[in-house]
Amino acid sequence: MYSFKNDYSEGAHPRILNALVESNFEQEEGYGEDRFTLKAVELLKERIGRTDVDIHLLSGGTQTNLTAISAFLRPHEAAMAASTGHILGHETGAIEATGHKILSIETEDGKLTPAHLRTVLDTHSDEHMVKPKLVYISNSTEIGSIYLKNELVQLREFCDENQLILYMDGARLGSALCSSENDLMLSDIPRLVDAFYIGGTKNGALIGEALVICRDSLKEDFRYHLKQKGALLAKGRLLGIQFLELFRDNLFFDLAAHANRMAEMLRTELGKAKIPFLTESPSNQIFPILPNALITELQGKYSFHVWEQVDADHSAIRLVTSWATKEDKVAAFIEDLKKLI
Amino acid sequence: MYSFKNDYSEGAHPRILNALVESNFEQEEGYGEDRFTLKAVELLKERIGRTDVDIHLLSGGTQTNLTAISAFLRPHEAAMAASTGHILGHETGAIEATGHKILSIETEDGKLTPAHLRTVLDTHSDEHMVKPKLVYISNSTEIGSIYLKNELVQLREFCDENQLILYMDGARLGSALCSSENDLMLSDIPRLVDAFYIGGTKNGALIGEALVICRDSLKEDFRYHLKQKGALLAKGRLLGIQFLELFRDNLFFDLAAHANRMAEMLRTELGKAKIPFLTESPSNQIFPILPNALITELQGKYSFHVWEQVDADHSAIRLVTSWATKEDKVAAFIEDLKKLI
Amino acid sequence: MYSFKNDYSEGAHPRILNALVESNFEQEEGYGEDRFTLKAVELLKERIGRTDVDIHLLSGGTQTNLTAISAFLRPHEAAMAASTGHILGHETGAIEATGHKILSIETEDGKLTPAHLRTVLDTHSDEHMVKPKLVYISNSTEIGSIYLKNELVQLREFCDENQLILYMDGARLGSALCSSENDLMLSDIPRLVDAFYIGGTKNGALIGEALVICRDSLKEDFRYHLKQKGALLAKGRLLGIQFLELFRDNLFFDLAAHANRMAEMLRTELGKAKIPFLTESPSNQIFPILPNALITELQGKYSFHVWEQVDADHSAIRLVTSWATKEDKVAAFIEDLKKLI
Amino acid sequence: MYSFKNDYSEGAHPRILNALVESNFEQEEGYGEDRFTLKAVELLKERIGRTDVDIHLLSGGTQTNLTAISAFLRPHEAAMAASTGHILGHETGAIEATGHKILSIETEDGKLTPAHLRTVLDTHSDEHMVKPKLVYISNSTEIGSIYLKNELVQLREFCDENQLILYMDGARLGSALCSSENDLMLSDIPRLVDAFYIGGTKNGALIGEALVICRDSLKEDFRYHLKQKGALLAKGRLLGIQFLELFRDNLFFDLAAHANRMAEMLRTELGKAKIPFLTESPSNQIFPILPNALITELQGKYSFHVWEQVDADHSAIRLVTSWATKEDKVAAFIEDLKKLI
Repeated sequence: MYSFKNDYSEGAHPRILNALVESNFEQEEGYGEDRFTLKAVELLKERIGRTDVDIHLLSGGTQTNLTAISAFLRPHEAAMAASTGHILGHETGAIEATGHKILSIETEDGKLTPAHLRTVLDTHSDEHMVKPKLVYISNSTEIGSIYLKNELVQLREFCDENQLILYMDGARLGSALCSSENDLMLSDIPRLVDAFYIGGTKNGALIGEALVICRDSLKEDFRYHLKQKGALLAKGRLLGIQFLELFRDNLFFDLAAHANRMAEMLRTELGKAKIPFLTESPSNQIFPILPNALITELQGKYSFHVWEQVDADHSAIRLVTSWATKEDKVAAFIEDLKKLI
Repeated sequence: MYSFKNDYSEGAHPRILNALVESNFEQEEGYGEDRFTLKAVELLKERIGRTDVDIHLLSGGTQTNLTAISAFLRPHEAAMAASTGHILGHETGAIEATGHKILSIETEDGKLTPAHLRTVLDTHSDEHMVKPKLVYISNSTEIGSIYLKNELVQLREFCDENQLILYMDGARLGSALCSSENDLMLSDIPRLVDAFYIGGTKNGALIGEALVICRDSLKEDFRYHLKQKGALLAKGRLLGIQFLELFRDNLFFDLAAHANRMAEMLRTELGKAKIPFLTESPSNQIFPILPNALITELQGKYSFHVWEQVDADHSAIRLVTSWATKEDKVAAFIEDLKKLI
Repeated sequence: MYSFKNDYSEGAHPRILNALVESNFEQEEGYGEDRFTLKAVELLKERIGRTDVDIHLLSGGTQTNLTAISAFLRPHEAAMAASTGHILGHETGAIEATGHKILSIETEDGKLTPAHLRTVLDTHSDEHMVKPKLVYISNSTEIGSIYLKNELVQLREFCDENQLILYMDGARLGSALCSSENDLMLSDIPRLVDAFYIGGTKNGALIGEALVICRDSLKEDFRYHLKQKGALLAKGRLLGIQFLELFRDNLFFDLAAHANRMAEMLRTELGKAKIPFLTESPSNQIFPILPNALITELQGKYSFHVWEQVDADHSAIRLVTSWATKEDKVAAFIEDLKKLI
Repeated sequence: MYSFKNDYSEGAHPRILNALVESNFEQEEGYGEDRFTLKAVELLKERIGRTDVDIHLLSGGTQTNLTAISAFLRPHEAAMAASTGHILGHETGAIEATGHKILSIETEDGKLTPAHLRTVLDTHSDEHMVKPKLVYISNSTEIGSIYLKNELVQLREFCDENQLILYMDGARLGSALCSSENDLMLSDIPRLVDAFYIGGTKNGALIGEALVICRDSLKEDFRYHLKQKGALLAKGRLLGIQFLELFRDNLFFDLAAHANRMAEMLRTELGKAKIPFLTESPSNQIFPILPNALITELQGKYSFHVWEQVDADHSAIRLVTSWATKEDKVAAFIEDLKKLI
């Protein structure tokens, strides 16, 4: 049984484990004030091309989203998100548990546009409704699509005109930035969004997300929020060491590029076999639509999520590749699939 | 510079790192449903001597406390804690952020008794006040003391008589159980408290606390709370592998015993030198009272917390030992101190 | 300028003011333990035909909804509501501010059915999503429709089968129960829902809603929740006196019947004039669709809400009648409207 | 049985009821946008001597405290209060339910000083603890004492130096301002505190507190918070009409002066009888210490709170006078008491 279920099935890239082993007996400060974390933060600022951002390392995506969003908003302010957004449907009401409504927006492709936001603002005009304030986007999105630079520029302008906070969930930012369709550089992001995070967990780390706060007014006292939400690890070194290794050279991008290449193989070969896709995805998650009987057959040898029913006889499945996905397993999957068609 | 600042200055015990390396490429389910976590949970149940408890692995102490306590209480119910309790003064209002007041109780030694609780109940009698419901204790406490079995039996009885939930923060449970004054076994705990956690972070793990829920009525839907509070790690294996290693044999206890032995050395030798202590501590945190000038001298070679001012010329410092504390460094510290007296 | 804007434009029915004046100098206990409130509660139980319910008097609808729903749910549980539901779009995120998500359901007529709920339950199956637990319905709904007895029976059965809590917002319950299409009696409600409230503010009181808790497991400690949410008035007598007067005889129903009769006049005459309606409403809120130019003309003499744009040239307006609506004003409105067509 | 239990045992001053009756059939906007409320706000600004403050009318004290404090603070910030403060012990954790810790400070007389605050700030220095931000004071305090102008000036200076928010609970502000020991004018308050409220409920209104926000940065979007917390009454006119009547002339102060005069009678005559007091109170709450047997006797004819046990044979009781307290009843109480000594 080989798994295409997600991009966190394996442990960490060996270089990361090695770094943990090598640094193991050095005594360090706790709570993210260790030398590894401080160095990782400096290194990340360099890679991002901005020394004036604040960077905090957290353990996971839900933790990062809830800590950041609850810190950024006042009690009556709400987030806006595509209906496919992770915070809306897959975080057990974590944002609402901090007191904030999320306004759901139907989209074609999981991406928000100024027109979407305009409609929300126009229908939230007085104090009997929440005040829409934070725009939550994910890149790549939960259905595999990615934001082009021009799309982010337009969102930025809209947010500036309407005093909105633009926040990007980057759980799979590596895959987005390494997509063949991408025209965005890591260093473009800080001037386009107010805060974002660089996902480590789904790109080769054991755990770890690097939250980058770009807008000055959102930076104050952020470590208080980290501690209050249980996000300040005693051995913060665990996070620092990993990000140091991922960004010391090109490892972070190499791992994402591998994941994308594996997805590209699947996409190309399935496309040749005339298999349709639920969404257009240039990143490491693809959603082929297959006959249900065929899905059952495949499940004998591979594990993956059945994403949604498409019609009585067909369903879309989700195939996720990662830094650890083996090329020969991808090839075997394609061959097995072709035999079954 | 050698640090006695805390018990999380180093990484993890080498066997743990080794286990991570060896298991690294096995594909596993996410979110704590991996085989390592399932196995660790079974193993822990065995060690605890109870198959009917629920066990969840979380990343850190604040995270565990806030997730458990907010899951256990209804909105109008409050926790009670010794004024030295970690949730009261060192978790940035994490419990209050979930909506619950903590009632603070002054104690001599950081430990709660039925008499303490009686007073709180007697003064909280109607709906204009919160309803005291959960008793938070830590073992060992924040000032190094430990609970004897009989003391827990009395608390248990009081809680039963008054429909209270008894919750034990076990961030340093290893040290408590391995203390020379301890008369409690791990397998005694589930019938004495309603829930507790076994701290890994401060006893040889990279991160990880094992929350044990003993009372049936507190178990339902707990994984929802984990997810909502950001405590469900995608790569839950990271926690499972560590607890598996710690409890596969006697490692967890051996590490705690080492920490205690190092503290014992300090306590004995400082005692011989007629140095008084702020608290009576038979565990891995001790609080000698030293002249301020001497403290300044020591700070040239050792790092530790200055805990509190005792009088104009003296302060108590906190020395913490751990699984990784080196005996020769302890010996050197003692020698240096003796020279300075 | 005459207002059809809402049903809270005037003060209270004169009998209520009179009762306040007459009781003014009697000394009473505070916080809802006064004799008037105790008597009102007994009287309401009689009218409801159930002595085993708990009844609490609160000041307003949002206050009642947020206090009840937050008391009834555990942190990971969510409410379900029609997308038109008051708690979803017109209470500034009050429910989310207590930590709970509301799952929005699109409906034809503002009313929920078991089929709606089935879909929500089917798509919320694990701990990565909130757990749907409370069904919020309003009767009459925000768009004027009412629940028939059989519809409530079906909801009740579905809730029983799925361990759901059925909660009815009765801000306009009087109008619903006095509708010509209604087949429900006040005394039917306690066996059909788990909790509901009888709205006073919109039916002749100055302020006041009577929350009736029917399910035993929801009753415990409810006064703590009232106090915590700021809902326990020091002079609770203000609420007790009003409900006593409304239910001493048939006043509550007489006032609602008047409001409905005024709406019926409007509906009938506008119908004769071939004016279409946005929703089918047999209660005291109606939504005629009118040419925009005509709306502008009417606004010169009458105030009302423009509810929503229907096409480029037409909009639906909301006309609300109340216990205080004057028949001659209704007649004048109809005449003015007919002239303008 | 005559009650000295509190200052909310009776209804409202007859002029207020009369104003409700006279305005009853005027149609008004809802939610505090009616002409009465707008006029009351203008009138209050005049009386306060400041046109640049924002004023909102709410129904009760707990409601006002929780709405204001949760609106003013960010998630990690805490309030500080005297241990006798109403928000600490008599509001069922209402502030904590909005997510904020209250730091309790022991005082002699229920009043906070810069020295008290200094100690709290000095011991809350990093992100592992909440950030003390809002200073909650009540005037008069819960034990009857009042703040002198100079004491408030010192608090103001300390708050300015330390970026703290100074908030005054004025549930009994009328009594404080009309105390014979008072040297403060209503118009002094807005430059001394950042926000305060003028209590109506305990000074002749049916319900109603007027929250005055003086600091610009605290004003924004406050009506959203009102609505979210259930504090925006549909018939806001109920509050506007009352405050209009209380401040149209000197009624508010006349009522408070009467209450104080009644308390003064009690204090003087009990003093003559050598009865000691638990606290020095120049306002409408006094706390004589009486033999327990005598208390029991008095309870046959009068109702009041037994405040606390002083020694085995004596307890302090609380006697509260109000705008409605009858002079002949006070005289009778004194006579009865003297007979019993």
